Amino acid sequence: MAAESTLSKETILDTAEQVLRRYGDKTNVVDVAKVLRVSHGTLYRHFASKAALLEAVTERWLHRISLPLEAISNQHDGSSPERLRIWLETLIHSKQQSAADDPELFSIYTAVTSQGTELIENHVHYLITLLSRIVEQGVIEQVFKSGEPGATARAIFMATVRFHHPAHAYEGDVVTKQHDFELVWQLILAGIVRADTKL
Amino acid sequence: MAAESTLSKETILDTAEQVLRRYGDKTNVVDVAKVLRVSHGTLYRHFASKAALLEAVTERWLHRISLPLEAISNQHDGSSPERLRIWLETLIHSKQQSAADDPELFSIYTAVTSQGTELIENHVHYLITLLSRIVEQGVIEQVFKSGEPGATARAIFMATVRFHHPAHAYEGDVVTKQHDFELVWQLILAGIVRADTKL
Repeated sequence: MAAESTLSKETILDTAEQVLRRYGDKTNVVDVAKVLRVSHGTLYRHFASKAALLEAVTERWLHRISLPLEAISNQHDGSSPERLRIWLETLIHSKQQSAADDPELFSIYTAVTSQGTELIENHVHYLITLLSRIVEQGVIEQVFKSGEPGATARAIFMATVRFHHPAHAYEGDVVTKQHDFELVWQLILAGIVRADTKL
Repeated sequence: MAAESTLSKETILDTAEQVLRRYGDKTNVVDVAKVLRVSHGTLYRHFASKAALLEAVTERWLHRISLPLEAISNQHDGSSPERLRIWLETLIHSKQQSAADDPELFSIYTAVTSQGTELIENHVHYLITLLSRIVEQGVIEQVFKSGEPGATARAIFMATVRFHHPAHAYEGDVVTKQHDFELVWQLILAGIVRADTKL
């Protein structure tokens, strides 16, 4: 039995992930408490409801997939268009990968997203902030047209929803999707790159 | 009892729509047969399965909402950017309206879409064909940059999925969505309009 006093949020979330991978959406707080060998009262002190537990699992999962995106936004290798493309492809790829390799957690993330929770709003806001750093750098380097980087970043994020939003994860075939992303990418580039820039 | 010999596809689909609005996804072919007062054998001769019936209802529904879009693509009033914007807004508005006013049929359309049926592929292909007429006209008038109108139209369609795909119909608030559409619209315009064009 886990010592209740040392029961950390991380331990609970690790266990919750395992249980969710096994039982999916049917998982209850009680199931997680059982595996942890603590009373469900103890667990409810950490997570007041099943919804709260699912959100916490999703939040940590989103944080994990955001780390490489944060790294790309903070480094300055390559041109701004190159970094922008790598950033978008990393986002798209990580979602595709999770949908394929971790379908249970992905389906919980999809459900939390469709409920329009504050958590998802904050996550989208955070991703757009990362994206706007790259756009801003491109504006400073006079590769991208001048303008408000936050607004441009939000436009780019919304224009690529087809490729990274969980609702579209299992839609269409990979080849068509890649081809469609290429078309949208060219449209975005044409929209943001200065006419006097040679790529 | 409807004379079986005169039972038209239109009559069946009219009735199926009514029944679907009442019983939603639980509707069976047998329920529709009952209301039409024909044997279900008769109905199965027209629609071999529930899936076939739902697809036929969705197909007619999609055809209905495509008519105004066809009209916009075929007329030549206003500038190409203006027509492009009206076309996109009409598409977005008709989906929003249906989601709000006709939730049962909209939910069937959403389900058929998520199954990636040929019907939906054809519908998307058709919409992109309509869109490419406007793009082509803009290229001819030298308002839009030269390029393959079909590819540009497909890029525009995919970049606006956030605003017209049924999976996003109930996501986010209307004001934010309108604001986000405006951002994406400006990005698209910046991408397709020739640098020497004054809008």
